[in-house]
Amino acid sequence: MGNPFEAPLVNEAVGQHIRNWRSYYEAKLGFRNHWYPTFNSDELLEGKPLPFELGGEKLLLNRIDGKVFAMKDQCLHRGVPLSRKVETYTKDTITCWYHGWTYRWSDGLLCDILTDPGSKMIGTRSNKVYPVQEAKGLVFVFLGDIDPPPLSTDLPPGFTDANRHVRVTRRKVEANWRIGAENGFDTTHIFIHKNSRLITGNQTMLPLGFAPKPNSDEPLFKIVKNENGQNGIYDMLAERGVPHFEGKVHGEVVCRAIHGGDKHIAGEISLWMPGVLKVDPFPDPAMIHFEWYVPCDENSHWYIHCATKVIEGPEGDETFGREYEALWKDLYVYGFNDDDIWAREATQPFYQDDWGWLDEQLFEADACIMAWRTLATETNRGIQTKGRPASTASGKSAAVST
Amino acid sequence: MGNPFEAPLVNEAVGQHIRNWRSYYEAKLGFRNHWYPTFNSDELLEGKPLPFELGGEKLLLNRIDGKVFAMKDQCLHRGVPLSRKVETYTKDTITCWYHGWTYRWSDGLLCDILTDPGSKMIGTRSNKVYPVQEAKGLVFVFLGDIDPPPLSTDLPPGFTDANRHVRVTRRKVEANWRIGAENGFDTTHIFIHKNSRLITGNQTMLPLGFAPKPNSDEPLFKIVKNENGQNGIYDMLAERGVPHFEGKVHGEVVCRAIHGGDKHIAGEISLWMPGVLKVDPFPDPAMIHFEWYVPCDENSHWYIHCATKVIEGPEGDETFGREYEALWKDLYVYGFNDDDIWAREATQPFYQDDWGWLDEQLFEADACIMAWRTLATETNRGIQTKGRPASTASGKSAAVST
Amino acid sequence: MGNPFEAPLVNEAVGQHIRNWRSYYEAKLGFRNHWYPTFNSDELLEGKPLPFELGGEKLLLNRIDGKVFAMKDQCLHRGVPLSRKVETYTKDTITCWYHGWTYRWSDGLLCDILTDPGSKMIGTRSNKVYPVQEAKGLVFVFLGDIDPPPLSTDLPPGFTDANRHVRVTRRKVEANWRIGAENGFDTTHIFIHKNSRLITGNQTMLPLGFAPKPNSDEPLFKIVKNENGQNGIYDMLAERGVPHFEGKVHGEVVCRAIHGGDKHIAGEISLWMPGVLKVDPFPDPAMIHFEWYVPCDENSHWYIHCATKVIEGPEGDETFGREYEALWKDLYVYGFNDDDIWAREATQPFYQDDWGWLDEQLFEADACIMAWRTLATETNRGIQTKGRPASTASGKSAAVST
Repeated sequence: MGNPFEAPLVNEAVGQHIRNWRSYYEAKLGFRNHWYPTFNSDELLEGKPLPFELGGEKLLLNRIDGKVFAMKDQCLHRGVPLSRKVETYTKDTITCWYHGWTYRWSDGLLCDILTDPGSKMIGTRSNKVYPVQEAKGLVFVFLGDIDPPPLSTDLPPGFTDANRHVRVTRRKVEANWRIGAENGFDTTHIFIHKNSRLITGNQTMLPLGFAPKPNSDEPLFKIVKNENGQNGIYDMLAERGVPHFEGKVHGEVVCRAIHGGDKHIAGEISLWMPGVLKVDPFPDPAMIHFEWYVPCDENSHWYIHCATKVIEGPEGDETFGREYEALWKDLYVYGFNDDDIWAREATQPFYQDDWGWLDEQLFEADACIMAWRTLATETNRGIQTKGRPASTASGKSAAVST
Repeated sequence: MGNPFEAPLVNEAVGQHIRNWRSYYEAKLGFRNHWYPTFNSDELLEGKPLPFELGGEKLLLNRIDGKVFAMKDQCLHRGVPLSRKVETYTKDTITCWYHGWTYRWSDGLLCDILTDPGSKMIGTRSNKVYPVQEAKGLVFVFLGDIDPPPLSTDLPPGFTDANRHVRVTRRKVEANWRIGAENGFDTTHIFIHKNSRLITGNQTMLPLGFAPKPNSDEPLFKIVKNENGQNGIYDMLAERGVPHFEGKVHGEVVCRAIHGGDKHIAGEISLWMPGVLKVDPFPDPAMIHFEWYVPCDENSHWYIHCATKVIEGPEGDETFGREYEALWKDLYVYGFNDDDIWAREATQPFYQDDWGWLDEQLFEADACIMAWRTLATETNRGIQTKGRPASTASGKSAAVST
Repeated sequence: MGNPFEAPLVNEAVGQHIRNWRSYYEAKLGFRNHWYPTFNSDELLEGKPLPFELGGEKLLLNRIDGKVFAMKDQCLHRGVPLSRKVETYTKDTITCWYHGWTYRWSDGLLCDILTDPGSKMIGTRSNKVYPVQEAKGLVFVFLGDIDPPPLSTDLPPGFTDANRHVRVTRRKVEANWRIGAENGFDTTHIFIHKNSRLITGNQTMLPLGFAPKPNSDEPLFKIVKNENGQNGIYDMLAERGVPHFEGKVHGEVVCRAIHGGDKHIAGEISLWMPGVLKVDPFPDPAMIHFEWYVPCDENSHWYIHCATKVIEGPEGDETFGREYEALWKDLYVYGFNDDDIWAREATQPFYQDDWGWLDEQLFEADACIMAWRTLATETNRGIQTKGRPASTASGKSAAVST
């Protein structure tokens, strides 16, 4: 099949896409030098390391005196996963089960080798470590090599609002992260939700689709670059377009949107780098929905689903927790968003070998998706690749000789 | 391993094979622009579309007012399978579950988009559709792009005889379709059937093998080109060769064919393009056996097994149906042809990476197989390939802009 | 990812490794023209052929009048495995179930074809056969094409000692054979055995690791080339290095070796071509341990584990057999060596695509492993490859014509 982006061009329009969105097309494993959510904070217990795959890299996370650290889950020596059999002899280190190579969580330094305390490798080699920050009950990891910019530059606006309580459900979806992001931000994908039990269950309504206003020059999206360090794009179709509550074939109405009630939801939809959606409000006028599409490997992503609500007072979290368990899990987390999961997994095969990016036929309502690709191409801090870290091997054998 | 057909030649004989049979070697997914049987007619109910994989392409078939239609099972927009969640709002169309793109079964025209009724794509794009014809209870699909020749040109002689009743059993075999065809037409493969319960169960007999008559110049096959539009080859070994009922090692008889009775079967064996065998009579003097080897994907084929019999009178079909269920399924469909299935699956690994076509060592009795390869190379209407339909993407984005 | 050995060099040290060990790196399927153990002698019953995969080749072994023969498990004709349905009409031959091609076990000659006794192929074609010898209850096969050197040149010293009784356990390990060999010979891998029940169960002890003596110039290994035809290497670290019974992190003792008793074991460890370890004594002062790492395919090896003991007298074998079943299986075969199996399988992914050989960072205690790689590169008799035996196809169609 070859590399589609090197294939002879079908026509100029496709060639334009390849030129405009090339780095997005290449970001199969996500963008490098960005912050991504991983575990929920309460999953990481003191001194109990857990592995997490992020952008094709295997990480090991651990909490020490309350603070979370992340290290590459691979011994420098023979490449085995440290997580295969965790051995932690001191609070601040992890020891490889195979030959006793011992790394400091804080900086990855190879500080001891239990099987050979005199090795010249000690103190001169380091494992890769990753900056970590926690926010709103999520553990964020900086997947990159540069000095990390503030976490806030990779968060959607409002996520860290005071008194905003967050409930997270993380699922692994068997589709590339970009299929996830484009499904979530896709203006007309709401067609798949037309029979969702959320509509009647929460007295709200959803149109079947949106269309641009005829003969209007208003743009259907608004790009925000580097506003408070954040880069994102707003879908303006809900505001400037025409919602359709009836679906027609051959001019006849063949299906109608369910009118569950008059609650207004999903008024403002935006997508932020490096891949997080904000739907405000959703699924209730009092709530905001956020969801991250975190690259796991080339063919799967972590779908990190955040239900959020501002609640004042000391018992806010417990109150929201009960509501989440009793109501929202059924109507919203599973009842509504399960449909997105199977839609993404059904889309994946077409794009899996990359040819789908050239063979797809986008239509007017996809303007937001096309603008997102441009934004992502222009504002990412790097492409995550699968390349072996050959540079870390430099001088690797200096201490030994045959 | 590379491409065997580009490798340096071992010797001139192999080189001759590559030159003679190249398009046969390349037809891993079958031949294009031919008619293939798919479902049984009674499997396709009115308005209930079913997916079928043919030559690596995903199709969706549906019956409308009694007539069967076939469309590519893939939305033009984002490439999802329409069959993942069938939505049919009018009898003559199918609507994609994702964004409401709606196609006409008759010609594939994108006639409506439920989420955006004003899109310029409507009326200007079409999904691929395939000509369909039914015959003798089978649904035939034309896998191709040209104006289809008559169905009869891809049927073996006699299949559509008046009063011929047909019973079909379709199974998926994990072997390339050519392994299926060569197993079926192979003169001496009857060695695997030597203990079949059909022999005693139906008072018949099978030799262990055939050999050419010593010092005879009579050809062992007869090629038929474009006779009534059909292309096929007859195995003349049963007529002109010498059957062997005893097998010898070191000159001693070590096994003997079972003599189940005196019924004569399998007098005339022929193989027809694009891959259908006729055995006349079989498994009984009053019956003719037909079997198709329909390419599913590169490593599997649909084995479409047809037991047929001419029966006069109004109750012919019911009578034959009872006989088929009570007798032939046990002795013949499963009892006899199961052996062919495991033989094909045992042969597949050697040919799977294509090197087997060069490493095999054919012998005299394979003359029919070699002639079949020549015939298939000379009379096919095209090679089916896995290439993405890049040409369909032409101008795809004309209606939209970033 | 490409071929790591052709990639631009990271630095001179890595380049030196590629130059020194290239044929070892390439021997993913093992070395050709060597003897390898396969079945236990008592698994191969008279006239009951069994298949075995060795270095990526499929073999079929059979015992005839007490002597074992090995043939390629593939018919010359259409490449099917003879083992799919074994048919043996005479003691000295095997007949292919498909078309009756019959091969002589002694030399592979195609001596008869049951379906066509007059074929010119008979007597002019031969299947590949392999030299076989039995020793100490193991069936050794010569995987190669040259006149085989004596079996003893591929056996470790002492294996065939008089009165040495051998008990074998064969397991398939999902790791390349070199990962197996380097795990077994690895001086400091004993760290993984630190809590083994063998230590207290057999009143012995193991250090956590070894280190070279400071400021010593004594080599840590001794290479033996062509001594009685054998090529091997001794690990001298146990003798010349310093054992460590305490493991330290930040200068504090964090773990101590268990002192199970005063029995001395593992005094002399050596690795022999083409991949067999000797540990003398082990797991008891009265025993010697041997283990072979026999390549099965690229990603798995047969771990052939031999417990041995010299016992005089007529009942020696039975006595040792009882001890093996009652004691050593639990403490040693499984209790101890299971840890090696999971360690090898945990190491495999890093090396699977070959990049691990360049990215690994070996340390001082790996000197023996590095010397082993050099020895294997210098003394192997050939590289086993997966190439199709195109040369055997020469003239294959001489007897037939289209």
